[in-house]
Amino acid sequence: MAADVVDRAMRAAIAAGEDVRGTTSPNPPVGCVVLDAEGRVVGVGATQPPGGPHAEVVALREAGERARGGTAVVTLEPCAHTGRTPACAQALSEAGIAEVVHAVSDPNPQAAGGADELRARGVAVRGGLLAEEVEKGALRAWLHFVHTGRPHVTWKYAATLDGRSAAADGTSKWISSAASRAEVHRVRAAMDAIVVGTGTVLVDDAQLTARDPDGNLRAKQPLRVVVGDRELPATARVLDDAAETLRLPGGDPDAVLRSLAERGAVDVLLEGGPTLAGAFWAAGRVDRVLAYVAPVLLGSGPAALGDAGVGSISQAWRLWIEDTTMSGPDLRISAVPRDR
Amino acid sequence: MAADVVDRAMRAAIAAGEDVRGTTSPNPPVGCVVLDAEGRVVGVGATQPPGGPHAEVVALREAGERARGGTAVVTLEPCAHTGRTPACAQALSEAGIAEVVHAVSDPNPQAAGGADELRARGVAVRGGLLAEEVEKGALRAWLHFVHTGRPHVTWKYAATLDGRSAAADGTSKWISSAASRAEVHRVRAAMDAIVVGTGTVLVDDAQLTARDPDGNLRAKQPLRVVVGDRELPATARVLDDAAETLRLPGGDPDAVLRSLAERGAVDVLLEGGPTLAGAFWAAGRVDRVLAYVAPVLLGSGPAALGDAGVGSISQAWRLWIEDTTMSGPDLRISAVPRDR
Repeated sequence: MAADVVDRAMRAAIAAGEDVRGTTSPNPPVGCVVLDAEGRVVGVGATQPPGGPHAEVVALREAGERARGGTAVVTLEPCAHTGRTPACAQALSEAGIAEVVHAVSDPNPQAAGGADELRARGVAVRGGLLAEEVEKGALRAWLHFVHTGRPHVTWKYAATLDGRSAAADGTSKWISSAASRAEVHRVRAAMDAIVVGTGTVLVDDAQLTARDPDGNLRAKQPLRVVVGDRELPATARVLDDAAETLRLPGGDPDAVLRSLAERGAVDVLLEGGPTLAGAFWAAGRVDRVLAYVAPVLLGSGPAALGDAGVGSISQAWRLWIEDTTMSGPDLRISAVPRDR
Repeated sequence: MAADVVDRAMRAAIAAGEDVRGTTSPNPPVGCVVLDAEGRVVGVGATQPPGGPHAEVVALREAGERARGGTAVVTLEPCAHTGRTPACAQALSEAGIAEVVHAVSDPNPQAAGGADELRARGVAVRGGLLAEEVEKGALRAWLHFVHTGRPHVTWKYAATLDGRSAAADGTSKWISSAASRAEVHRVRAAMDAIVVGTGTVLVDDAQLTARDPDGNLRAKQPLRVVVGDRELPATARVLDDAAETLRLPGGDPDAVLRSLAERGAVDVLLEGGPTLAGAFWAAGRVDRVLAYVAPVLLGSGPAALGDAGVGSISQAWRLWIEDTTMSGPDLRISAVPRDR
């Protein structure tokens, strides 16, 4: 198959995988495109919710007989094991697929071997296409989970250019722009869980839901998680029935992550205030930072990040900036910790 | 003259003007390119230090007879008045220039009328080409000075992503990268004065010079200005003979700016710590922010900006981000205050 046709198909597979983020955990949000023997797109699929078919099977079903002699382009190496669903390697081979091109190799010892299985069945296999893009994208959290056993934590915060989350009198509406607030709702929808401390609930009374631009609740809501021992008023919006809410006492990040992992959460958004965020940093449990920096200066007021276990500059948390874009008038910065 | 030829010439004129920033005040750093009748570049000039010739005269001297029938492309409308140097409008006309294209119109009542004078002498004149670029670039400070009578203040600071200028124990080497520190030296060289408070001198013992990448002093050093009443040790590096240093008692921003204006300073870099920066903000005397944001998190330590007269979010200083670029691993953000 011509390289540009396969590249385009992989980009479509990546988009399909992105679309199902937040709905597949503990399974990875994979995308798959099936091309017929002439390179025409005849099937597109993405991982269905747990218990449902994998991306390859969805795409093969759409393709039907047109898959015969064709190419399957998929963001993750097809699985070779039969779990709640039949192994994808077998399904691809039986559908008559001649070649499989995948981005990321499966790191999961339980599922690995899909490429070998396919080759044993006479299917050509090529891996690594646009792998970095997928590793940093839809599969980042799942890969982290497979490697560490812990959910992937994205610390999202909004602050002023001088690092403040509110003015001296506590007022903060609105530091970040409408564009940034709308984007946060899109980000939330792609997550398995949103974690805050009791302080954030008591101060902001945030509902922590994912809404569309019209303000309507999205079909899929992440689990809301409130960490800490302080009592919440029964009227707190985070306790309403717009989404499920989990209370976790204490405040130890590892205990929080264990509880979330047990519930199948892989991709977690930490929206906590300075105390909880500081605790996650001090424990080395932040895997990515998503900062919405408003072009605003206050000169006083609470800081976005509290004690993070840093006393001297040599202990500073140093990051790599992955990406910087404008979100309305705000700066949106994505960064990942460097090894200390 | 073909539009693309004139555009290219204006870009060269802009570059020539940029090159002399920091050496022309109180005159504007103007650039000029003279094209012959066929559109070939035959002269390039920029404003010489006070008392020296203006950009047009420098470019005309290089062009000589080749200017006849040609086009002068200049970042600022040529002057019509004879001061320490003869009026440029007259010089251009006498050199036989057929057309003048300028970017910015002269806002100075004393000097304005250059376009009229040229037209009266039979020279075609067109203004406005790439005017915005020049207004935001080399002529920004001078235009601000003409309009307000005050030097233009750029607040430069380096901080972590969470707005801190040092760790809790005061250590700060190095928050910003070598690339950012080198760039600050280039920025300083283009300024008339660098302003700090006594606190910055006492804490950092900064020399506040402009050095080249090899660490050598640049030929032109901005005036070093230390604001405040606290005594400085005689060994303070800011008091060495690498550049001139001005002590200004008190700390009122307007008094500081008046003193600087009297000395002909038009373009000022405020490198002060949180106290002096806060005072300039509270007085509404910051015209631009140049932030070097290091991808570092500390969670504690001194803030880059102190009390800026903001008690509630409605009083926040709101900015427009003009430009964001990477400076090594750091983010370099240029922003200007919005009207409050």
